[in-house]
Amino acid sequence: MEFNIRSVAEVINNRDDLADDFWGEIISEIRLSDEYSEESFAGIEEFSHLEIFFVFDKAINNKIVSGSEHPRENKDWPKVGIFAQRKKNRPNFIGSTIVELIKKQGKSIFVKNLDAINKTPIIDIKPVMKEFLPTNTIQPQWSVELMKDYWK
Amino acid sequence: MEFNIRSVAEVINNRDDLADDFWGEIISEIRLSDEYSEESFAGIEEFSHLEIFFVFDKAINNKIVSGSEHPRENKDWPKVGIFAQRKKNRPNFIGSTIVELIKKQGKSIFVKNLDAINKTPIIDIKPVMKEFLPTNTIQPQWSVELMKDYWK
Repeated sequence: MEFNIRSVAEVINNRDDLADDFWGEIISEIRLSDEYSEESFAGIEEFSHLEIFFVFDKAINNKIVSGSEHPRENKDWPKVGIFAQRKKNRPNFIGSTIVELIKKQGKSIFVKNLDAINKTPIIDIKPVMKEFLPTNTIQPQWSVELMKDYWK
Repeated sequence: MEFNIRSVAEVINNRDDLADDFWGEIISEIRLSDEYSEESFAGIEEFSHLEIFFVFDKAINNKIVSGSEHPRENKDWPKVGIFAQRKKNRPNFIGSTIVELIKKQGKSIFVKNLDAINKTPIIDIKPVMKEFLPTNTIQPQWSVELMKDYWK
């Protein structure tokens, strides 16, 4: 089944490079497109965290991985399927990250911990409710190693 | 900016009604489309939780909310913007939920806590890593009340 989606907002930050790590210090502005009003953010400041959905638009012409691969081409880690990793070159090129909301200002929100570069198109924003969060997650060792410098 | 997306899998469960609450007991099968092989799930069983991205396809002809509304039309709760709530009738009609992985079986995975009805198209599946989860979230009282029976 096919669907058309449209960006609802855009990322504005000072990160232009696609390197994998070191996303921790970046503050990003998320500015609504012309067709959305400030009202669509009403009450958002009562949430500490939001989930941001975006498109890896710079990766769209890359090869989509649909089988399995070593994460980051690192042969010390096992080959894992595309749905067992979070890499960019994936079916539909959709990224999602939970961020900390710093402030709302007119048609913009400012957030911390968004791992998306400047001008990335945003396709949805949802508030984080604790009732949707898991407790006691289990994950493989390779993913812990991969994340080591991610938020530094 | 516009993008085309395609479903990668489909939900199979015994939930056909769109009612808001009582999603807790449902086990869902997520079966890959023909174009994806079992290999794209390789290693997924090492994660306890996955995030499932889907399209509220039954809602696509409904009015999109782009301003603010009382959640579930309940006037006891404040009017909040579409990006401060998780309702279906939203720009791009994308849902996302963190589920518990029960087992992998060929081209299917079986999960608990997916709040999507039978035949819902899935557009992505990502593993949950603790490094992407927030601690100490804050949320408004209306959202706690709204979630009271959600997972029952």
